[in-house]
Amino acid sequence: MAASAPSSSGNEPDPNSTNLRPPGSRFLQKNNNLEEKISSFKERSSKDLLDNSDRDSRFRRTETDFSNLFARDLLPAKNGEEPTMQFLLEVVDILTNYVRKTFDRSTKVLDFHHPHQLLEGMEGFNLELSDQPESLEQILVDCRDTLKYGVRTGHPRFFNQLSTGLDIIGLSGEWLTSTANTNMFTYEIAPVFVLMEQLTLKKMREIIGWPDGEGDGIFSPGGAISNMYSVMIARYKFFPEVKTKGMTAAPRLVLFTSEHSHYSIKKASAALGFGTENLILLSTDERGRVIPADLEAKVIDAKARGCVPMFVNATAGSTVYGAFDPIHEIADICEKYNMWLHVDGAWGGGLLMSRKHRHKLCGVERANSVTWNPHKMMGVPLQCSAILVRERGVLSGCNSMCAGYLFQPDKQYDVSYDTGDKAIQCGRHVDIFKFWLMWKAKGTIGFEQHIDKCLDLSHYLYTKIKGRKGYQMVFDGEPQHTNVCFWYLPPGIRDMPDGQEKREKLHKVAPKIKALMMESGTTMVGYQPQGDKVNFFRMVISNPAATRSDIDFLTDEIERLGQDL
Amino acid sequence: MAASAPSSSGNEPDPNSTNLRPPGSRFLQKNNNLEEKISSFKERSSKDLLDNSDRDSRFRRTETDFSNLFARDLLPAKNGEEPTMQFLLEVVDILTNYVRKTFDRSTKVLDFHHPHQLLEGMEGFNLELSDQPESLEQILVDCRDTLKYGVRTGHPRFFNQLSTGLDIIGLSGEWLTSTANTNMFTYEIAPVFVLMEQLTLKKMREIIGWPDGEGDGIFSPGGAISNMYSVMIARYKFFPEVKTKGMTAAPRLVLFTSEHSHYSIKKASAALGFGTENLILLSTDERGRVIPADLEAKVIDAKARGCVPMFVNATAGSTVYGAFDPIHEIADICEKYNMWLHVDGAWGGGLLMSRKHRHKLCGVERANSVTWNPHKMMGVPLQCSAILVRERGVLSGCNSMCAGYLFQPDKQYDVSYDTGDKAIQCGRHVDIFKFWLMWKAKGTIGFEQHIDKCLDLSHYLYTKIKGRKGYQMVFDGEPQHTNVCFWYLPPGIRDMPDGQEKREKLHKVAPKIKALMMESGTTMVGYQPQGDKVNFFRMVISNPAATRSDIDFLTDEIERLGQDL
Repeated sequence: MAASAPSSSGNEPDPNSTNLRPPGSRFLQKNNNLEEKISSFKERSSKDLLDNSDRDSRFRRTETDFSNLFARDLLPAKNGEEPTMQFLLEVVDILTNYVRKTFDRSTKVLDFHHPHQLLEGMEGFNLELSDQPESLEQILVDCRDTLKYGVRTGHPRFFNQLSTGLDIIGLSGEWLTSTANTNMFTYEIAPVFVLMEQLTLKKMREIIGWPDGEGDGIFSPGGAISNMYSVMIARYKFFPEVKTKGMTAAPRLVLFTSEHSHYSIKKASAALGFGTENLILLSTDERGRVIPADLEAKVIDAKARGCVPMFVNATAGSTVYGAFDPIHEIADICEKYNMWLHVDGAWGGGLLMSRKHRHKLCGVERANSVTWNPHKMMGVPLQCSAILVRERGVLSGCNSMCAGYLFQPDKQYDVSYDTGDKAIQCGRHVDIFKFWLMWKAKGTIGFEQHIDKCLDLSHYLYTKIKGRKGYQMVFDGEPQHTNVCFWYLPPGIRDMPDGQEKREKLHKVAPKIKALMMESGTTMVGYQPQGDKVNFFRMVISNPAATRSDIDFLTDEIERLGQDL
Repeated sequence: MAASAPSSSGNEPDPNSTNLRPPGSRFLQKNNNLEEKISSFKERSSKDLLDNSDRDSRFRRTETDFSNLFARDLLPAKNGEEPTMQFLLEVVDILTNYVRKTFDRSTKVLDFHHPHQLLEGMEGFNLELSDQPESLEQILVDCRDTLKYGVRTGHPRFFNQLSTGLDIIGLSGEWLTSTANTNMFTYEIAPVFVLMEQLTLKKMREIIGWPDGEGDGIFSPGGAISNMYSVMIARYKFFPEVKTKGMTAAPRLVLFTSEHSHYSIKKASAALGFGTENLILLSTDERGRVIPADLEAKVIDAKARGCVPMFVNATAGSTVYGAFDPIHEIADICEKYNMWLHVDGAWGGGLLMSRKHRHKLCGVERANSVTWNPHKMMGVPLQCSAILVRERGVLSGCNSMCAGYLFQPDKQYDVSYDTGDKAIQCGRHVDIFKFWLMWKAKGTIGFEQHIDKCLDLSHYLYTKIKGRKGYQMVFDGEPQHTNVCFWYLPPGIRDMPDGQEKREKLHKVAPKIKALMMESGTTMVGYQPQGDKVNFFRMVISNPAATRSDIDFLTDEIERLGQDL
């Protein structure tokens, strides 16, 4: 192969890359004062750089013409700085406009289209990839359309998921993280982020209540992976030989979790080689909380069958009911039978930040490991999930493989800060910065206020609909978390006698209302069946933008859309 | 619990939130023309909103005073829009400044500090978290300092990792992704992103060479997880009962991979319950490529020992040598012995985009699964990794648990687009958009040009140092990928007779030069030992900003710093 010059085609910017745009041009439809100012600014800065003396023209409505610019004209291209800055500012214009509208209740939550509609291509929006580059103008249109046909998860009336809201500090943190574009595996290339992770994990362990915040932990790509870690490290703690010899080196191990727990525990038992049949589901009371006596009975039964009970997951904030398992009573049983206690606080862990509500996780300090997702109740942007471990050493013992090309022992700094070998990942996204920055900006008390407010709102909803005509609660009593589970019974069903026919009709109500909601785009809330209970709504509140008026809006909307069903 | 009003303290903005800043104020030290214009713009837009008639004052150098503003003053706070926009623009100012400097060769790659130095707190930069909120001014300082003490992975002279560079389109895509802040598990809340993922995965499968791009796949949080998927689905394909009954339901399974392969295969064999001893390492030739005859011999041997050979990983682009295993010959053996063939193209997969270099993956179309990380050779920002599977159904068969609260069958749209149950994750970050956007912006040919350019550059380096005084190649012949592995021998070592003493001295050279490099902050390149070979440099080129002059700079720097060792 002969040495050839690096391809430089396209590295020279088009000399016509900035020019005047004819008035009324289709591309940028300015629709408010601030946008006008931004574009006016951009035109000015662009003009100033080109012709610093042309001060009089600086307010002419002109913009960089992106129709003649391509990705190859941006940095690192020669003279790429100016188009790069103009392009990034244009993107920011689109994004800040989206942010403003997200918080504007006159904007829809979504503009629903079916898959086939988006695949056929909306006006000017074509998802297909091609061999040839598109102009930067088209790229900006694509950015705008991607947001247009998406779902505003930060909208004050988006209640569909456990992760909602759009935190401005967290968003800034994510923007910075992507700009830094580095990797958590070594201190060498992520010195600040590695230290932030260590300090933040320690703070979280202190809040859990482990002495001096001692222990270990890591941020993982989500609660399911964090829960998977807990099962892995429990196995390593009791049967370290499985790491080298495989599951056949261990006796038949069984795991326990609530029938209401998150399905990731089941996924982990399948993936890690335990088998889902060796995950034993625990009965719950009517509120969805594990019955400790059932755990003990099943432990005894498993031992009688020759199995080795190894791991118990206690859920702190179940996905549907928001139930908190009684950790102290479960911990007693774990100690008695020498089992690992994991607390899945992916959803409920945030309540540890609230002096008023943290008692719901009473006993969490007795857990061997805890999953806690700041990207749920604490409003941190996705993804941000931590697995915290009480005992030091077991996480790295479980996962380390000492890859020489990454974790050289002869570096010039203290290599105990190279934490990558603790992970099941190699490269690992920087999830810490946005969270650290939010904590700095809000303080612990800011998180507490947010959590207390969300729980106050769910109390408001519960109080409002409990006993209200047409509503029926799925379980009695004040919810423990922000989950409020209820049926809405349209007038035509309300007075039917209880029985199969009513159940069948009621089962179809929530999906129908949800479909109408999505088509009108006004609000979003989840529904599902659970056990023998037909489809019901699960309202959850984690959105800092939500107010009582949004709760009122939701119930009005359910009644409006469900009226004639 | 009584219904109480949501905490509204702090939701009212401070009436003094925008004011004039005294000249010479410490906080914002403007250092270039563009920055001045941005701040001038911001002041203007702010002033205009406050007082639209005050046109004469619009160029006064004033800014929003963030020292009296807090996170609670931003959206969704009442009147939060204006401070939110000002704050985001201030963040963008910091980020665009960082972007510009990243591409400026007069800027250092890093400003190295030891962990204890950063932990003790640099001037004004304190990593500790506190109970009380910090002002937005401090938050902006923290953003600036975080970047200041980090590593510029996009710098033209950063060669330390397989993922380097800062693609402006990809960066814009990440900014948009974080603003959209949604989750890949259902079409319901990520309609556009779900479709983009499907179309992009199909395109990747077409490029691999699977008929009509048929098959399946998913984006995962990184190559290690993608490789883990491949082992899981291979096991499910051959022994589906392991999902429910665990590893004890299967015979003793063995896996094969090159001794040069990535350590994630070993991590997967430990995590999934195979045990690392049941991962059999294959011998390689002097270039680091698997010797197919060794594979067959070890398969026969394993069978003779009563084991069941199940899975072979062929590496396409090994981490250190950049070696490509001979896929066709390995595929023949896999077919003969009915084993799953996985190709780990995390690093080398990108070469499929180049007509000139894709022959190095010849036979990849015979693989059952392929890992391909666009965040490595294709320059997509972290994280972006795909696991691609030839047979439809096995990925979802392996992982689905049918969680009722997410994957309701009675939705109004075609629920086959709810792809979340295929994943081992529940929530899943949107990794597709930046990649899709880059593909749109560059076209297939843009990726091809980038890859050809990087390989041309590594050829330039190879040609330059091969036979040059003081350099010794780790293996003979032109490298297959951009990995160029070499020792630098300082003058004092060059003429020593071969032997243990020389080896010991040489082993210490690369770490010393690397430490000096990091302390001077001029460039970064990796080193490691491999097998019986003492520490050597591994140069890799994936950075689109790198040029021949940067390669020259690197060798000059190695010689300068290594001169007196």
